[in-house]
This record gives sequence, C-alpha cells and structure tokens, in this order.
Amino acid sequence: MRIGFIGLGAMGEPMARNLASANFLNVIWNRTTEKAEVLAKELGVHKAKSPEKLAKKSDVVFTCVSADDDVLDVIWSMLPGLGPGKIVVDTSTVSSATAKSAAKMLEDKGASFLDAPVSGGVEGAKNATLAMMIGGESDVLNRVKSVLDVLATRIVLMGPTGSGQGTKAVNQAMAAGINQAVTEALAFAHELGLPMDKVIDVISGGAAGNWFLEHRGPSMTHAQFQPGFKVELHQKDLRICKRMAEEKGLKLPLTIQTITDYEILIQEGYGEEDISALYRLKP
Amino acid sequence: MRIGFIGLGAMGEPMARNLASANFLNVIWNRTTEKAEVLAKELGVHKAKSPEKLAKKSDVVFTCVSADDDVLDVIWSMLPGLGPGKIVVDTSTVSSATAKSAAKMLEDKGASFLDAPVSGGVEGAKNATLAMMIGGESDVLNRVKSVLDVLATRIVLMGPTGSGQGTKAVNQAMAAGINQAVTEALAFAHELGLPMDKVIDVISGGAAGNWFLEHRGPSMTHAQFQPGFKVELHQKDLRICKRMAEEKGLKLPLTIQTITDYEILIQEGYGEEDISALYRLKP
Repeated sequence: MRIGFIGLGAMGEPMARNLASANFLNVIWNRTTEKAEVLAKELGVHKAKSPEKLAKKSDVVFTCVSADDDVLDVIWSMLPGLGPGKIVVDTSTVSSATAKSAAKMLEDKGASFLDAPVSGGVEGAKNATLAMMIGGESDVLNRVKSVLDVLATRIVLMGPTGSGQGTKAVNQAMAAGINQAVTEALAFAHELGLPMDKVIDVISGGAAGNWFLEHRGPSMTHAQFQPGFKVELHQKDLRICKRMAEEKGLKLPLTIQTITDYEILIQEGYGEEDISALYRLKP
Repeated sequence: MRIGFIGLGAMGEPMARNLASANFLNVIWNRTTEKAEVLAKELGVHKAKSPEKLAKKSDVVFTCVSADDDVLDVIWSMLPGLGPGKIVVDTSTVSSATAKSAAKMLEDKGASFLDAPVSGGVEGAKNATLAMMIGGESDVLNRVKSVLDVLATRIVLMGPTGSGQGTKAVNQAMAAGINQAVTEALAFAHELGLPMDKVIDVISGGAAGNWFLEHRGPSMTHAQFQPGFKVELHQKDLRICKRMAEEKGLKLPLTIQTITDYEILIQEGYGEEDISALYRLKP
C-alpha cells in the first residue's frame, strides 16, 4: 500500500514520521514547499510537486490541514489523481458538513473518504498514542486499519461520514470546559496560598483528576505556556462546535465563554501559546 | 496503637472496615447507635457509649462526619477523653477555619490534630485508593502514616493546619467545573446523535480525558444516577468553597453556577442522587 501525506504541521509532521518509521510512507506534500523538501530528504521519501501528483502515487492519502476550506481545496486539487479503490483519510478537525462534502467529491470519482480527526495533542502524535474518531464505512476502515495502528492507540468507528468530526467537536467542547474548570480551581488554590505542585499531584489522584491538570497544571502554574495545543487552533475548533450546536438549537455556555476568553488572549498576543494560557485571565 | 473511628457513613464505614482488616481498629462510635452496634459485632471491635469513652480507649481517633458543626461537636464531646500524645485525624470535608478551631481545642489539651480530607469517592474508600490532603505538623503525620497507608494511596502534607481543607475545597471546585464540562459536552454528543458509549471511550483516551467522564459518563448517559457522591453533599462542599473564595475576594463562576444548578436538582427531589445527575438539566 503506497501512502501519501499532505500537511506537515505540528500534528502532521510527527504522524508522517511515524508512518515513515513503519515503512508505510511513500510521498509527501506541504503548502510550504521547503518543509516537505527537508523532511522528504530526511525520511527518504518522495516529495510530490502537487496534491494531484501525490494522489497519483498513492493508494491512501492522509490529509492534516487547518481549516474547512483547506480540506476541500486540497481534495479538489487531488481529484484528477484519484480513482476507484483509493482512500483519503482526513485527520484535520473540521465540521461534519465539510466531511460530508469531501466524501461526496470522492464518491463521484469512485474513491472513498474517512473523517478521522484525532485527540491527544502533539505528544500523542509523536508517541503514536492518539485517539482517532472515525466517520465512514467499516469496510473502508478495515482496509487502512493496519496503517492507522501506527498512529493511534484508540481507533473507534463512530458511525457514517461526519461522525468522526461530530465526536471531535464534542471532544473540543469538553476540553474547553475542562480548561475553564482547571484554571478556575488552580487560581483558587493560588489565592489560598497552597503549594501548587502538591495541589496538582494530590487532586490528580482523585475524582477530579484529568489529563489536562496532570499535563498542563505544572507548566501553567509556573507561567509556562508553550504549545501543546495553540489557543488560536482551539478557538477555530470551538467556533465549529458553536456552529454545529446552534444548528441543533443547543447552547454550549462553557464553549461560548471560552471563545470570549480566547478572543481576549488572542488580542493580547497570546494566540500562539498553549490553551492553558487561559490561566492568565484568572484573577 | 489503638485506633478509634467516629462517623460510619458512606465514606466512614468502608474506611473503618479497611482499618479493621489491617488489625488497626479498636473501637467505633456513630450518632446512629444501631449502625455502630451491627458493625462492631461484624468486625469484632468495641462500640463506645460516647465520643468521650471512645477517646479514652484510643491513641488515634479518626472522624468522618458531615458538617463543620459536627466536627466541632464531636471533638468537644471527646475533649475529656483526650490528652497529651493523642491525635485526632479528621477526614471530613469542612472549612479551613473549622480545622483551625478544632486544632486549637486539642492543643489546649496537649493533643494533636490533622485535617485530612479525602478524594476518590466511595470506590476510593472501599478500595483504599483515596487521595488524602493533610494539614498539620509533619511529625504528627509521621506518627500515623502507617495507619493512613491502609486508607489511601496518595498522602500529601499540604502545609499547616487548614491546608488539607483548602486543598479539598480546590478539589471540590474543580469537580464542579468538570461536572459542568462533561455534562455539557455529552449533551452535545447526544444532540448530534452519536453513539454515547463510543464517544465516552474515545474521548477518555485523549487530552480531554478525565476520571469523571470515565466513571460517570456511562451511567449518566444511561440515566443511572446512584451515588457515588451525592448532590447534597457536594452542594455543602461548594458552599464552603464559595465562602472561602469570597473571603479572598475571588469569584468562582463555575462553582456558583453549579450551586445554582444543584439547588434546582435538590428542589426537584434529586439531592440524594450522584452529582452526575447534573446531566438531567442539560437540554
């Protein structure tokens, strides 16, 4: 199986590296050409001149890009190179509607689509411990399962096309709420004059324990906010959540509060920091 | 070392059982006498006629009661039975101010006090996997450490008297926020028509993963709300958090929102349900 990879950003690059280590990767393409050139040389894989050429050289194409339009653009560009039997696995976080549009474009060419957004952050991408939420057909998933195993420890078929993105939206909304919960409580601890490292340690062991507290609590309380997961990227995802919820007539108060807070952070120049920078806004 | 235990409720009873299994427990007392009689017979330990008599027969007394006044009442009742070298370990969740008052009463008798609230729920009490947050002197903690090891897997000295309760308040505030985060996001998932068990499984594996989702997500989405941790008890704790925060001039929006929501649940007759009953209020 010849694998192509498009989008070598913070998440895409380590995923491509893991595919290369497992001898699955054949060809890469990136909007910023230099990045693809350097990485192709290092990994000993091909660098395609265009998404179309990458698609021609691939049986399975992974895409990992930033926004809904990017997914549709890159699939549009690949179309002449795609045909029956080929599969596009989109690991980007976009809306369910975009996933459905992408699947439709590919269907018309006889190719298949999986929406396969991931959770677990840059660490998860590097350590191949991502959780992967799949929307699409189970027989399509089965054909690429051995490849996905190289990237993720949890691979769950959620339902038809768009279900992976729906699940990711739920994940991102939950992450926003947890960010609010953890930063509010740690600010309280700080105000009480408690030893923060010990607070984080002992709370992590109980019923309020959570990944974010354990992995971001120590850094945020030492005023370190390197990503991790950037405020501006989570902000993009939360706007997707808000839109998807509104379409269902549902309000997500914690998501909406977090969008407001992130807007302040972005305006103050902290958009490229980790989402734990929300701690900056807690009194 | 002769150990006494006062307060055989949902948390206290399993803790007393674990102390008995380790051959540490000597004598118990409970406000509802029948409960103490039955358990004393089962465990083969003494049942004291009063807190004072229990204190006389004990080197170390554990208390596990509901409210600030209960702690002060029971310590007041024990005072004639307490003297130099004796230690009271209060595992209740009350305010830092109550812990300080209790310590002062004991100090006047030459006895010592540790505030030692726990996290980890009824499961943690049963399985002896509690996290224990201690306020007090390290030499006092060292004298009872081998006993605490029978109850908890994490035992952390947070600082002087009251620091254990301060940490517990932070824990409870964080638990409230996480309850909001998880129930809001799962209601979103339900609205999107996603398979809930799979959503819980896959999100648990990523950066939004948390104890509450993993342990209460499956039950709440199947409309099962047996405690666990009762709404009315968390409500009591959150009022302590609110008061402690106000004393510092701090607002805790998620705690305040949760107090409001729990009030609705209690008025609708759900106060004895698990705190995950908050899911009932999500549209």
